Amino acid sequence: MFKLLILFVSLAGQATAATTNLPVSFGVVLFPAFQALDVFGPLDALNLLAFQYPVNLSLIAGTLDPVSTKPRSGAMNPMNSNFSESVLPTHTFATAPPLDVLIVPGGLGTRATDLNDTIDFVRETFPTLQYFVSVCTGAGIAARAGILDGKDATTNKRAWNSTVVWGPQTNWITHARWVVDGNIWTTSGVSAGLDGMLAFIDAIYGADVALNIANGMEYVRVTNSSDDPFADLYGL
Amino acid sequence: MFKLLILFVSLAGQATAATTNLPVSFGVVLFPAFQALDVFGPLDALNLLAFQYPVNLSLIAGTLDPVSTKPRSGAMNPMNSNFSESVLPTHTFATAPPLDVLIVPGGLGTRATDLNDTIDFVRETFPTLQYFVSVCTGAGIAARAGILDGKDATTNKRAWNSTVVWGPQTNWITHARWVVDGNIWTTSGVSAGLDGMLAFIDAIYGADVALNIANGMEYVRVTNSSDDPFADLYGL
Repeated sequence: MFKLLILFVSLAGQATAATTNLPVSFGVVLFPAFQALDVFGPLDALNLLAFQYPVNLSLIAGTLDPVSTKPRSGAMNPMNSNFSESVLPTHTFATAPPLDVLIVPGGLGTRATDLNDTIDFVRETFPTLQYFVSVCTGAGIAARAGILDGKDATTNKRAWNSTVVWGPQTNWITHARWVVDGNIWTTSGVSAGLDGMLAFIDAIYGADVALNIANGMEYVRVTNSSDDPFADLYGL
Repeated sequence: MFKLLILFVSLAGQATAATTNLPVSFGVVLFPAFQALDVFGPLDALNLLAFQYPVNLSLIAGTLDPVSTKPRSGAMNPMNSNFSESVLPTHTFATAPPLDVLIVPGGLGTRATDLNDTIDFVRETFPTLQYFVSVCTGAGIAARAGILDGKDATTNKRAWNSTVVWGPQTNWITHARWVVDGNIWTTSGVSAGLDGMLAFIDAIYGADVALNIANGMEYVRVTNSSDDPFADLYGL
């Protein structure tokens, strides 16, 4: 009986090996013309995780002004639509608290030439993180920050060519819904961020936790990281 | 040649029959503790539609103060997490412009007893709309506004029982990713809003438009409205 108890404790210890140091403090960087679902796919999953684990979120930008999905130029808004959403940051790059997980979304805004403060923040924060997650062309920001050098990574498939040029030292994986290399998670385009985040929750908090969240979202998720029809669709 | 030209014009006219009066003005109501993906799944698809069609968006709430996903009570935040996002309204219920499409999200906030202004806005706006769309438990708000009386509709499957009570005159459809009855579109829980909105875009703007947007989101969407494993999962 004593031996059985020891074994049980040991097994439980193994099963939750990754949980001894569970991430608590999450951050998301916001920049003009971010892609909405890149942010709110992963965050909706994490909003539900927050009912089961004590976690906190910082939304981090250059200033505390609302950050909009609005296209940054007329060329990026050919129909002259007035269609965007604005999200309120909680912190600036200067005031962000220590983070366990940093999430970098993508979007047309990643093509901007004035993202140095965002890129610097990613570069300077990375060494203190438990995990880094990029969604979509957010991998381009990560690459420009140098943190994907020598790493396996993926990114948006439609914007593949214009993104991978930022990471000449990166081993870009074409057929991947998401890629894990050490503590770096990179996902493919837009909706892939939700699958990547659910896989992250699965790996870090447990399969039952991820399944419960996906079921709560009524989402049939992609569980095979190499299941990626869009690589073929876009001729990669 | 002349006949062929006439025929071509006629066919084009048929193909775009639904487009003679395309929706331009979209609105989304926001209330405290809305579900993030209920809003940003559909809006991400519409953000991409905005590159192809001239559309505009109003985010409508009781005041112009930021509206948060934050749980409204300690009971709804059992782990005492600090994890939420705030979105900036563009209009109040009093200042909202005429709308062609009104979208009502769900979330734990739909259970609140102080949503009368939201419900009144839905009731008063509905007669002037081309289309109404609810996501998730947003159907509960629509039901309380009376606009689902005598209609087929669906809602979140995990929150089914607590939502359908608001619509005793509604024909609630259990096994449905989304339901269309006349100009009323209701979707199942959370991520179903994205499939429902893509189906809406497919029906109104064309299959090629919807496919292009889904491919841009790298999203393999549910195209069969009765493909709903979550009705069984939750025993409905």
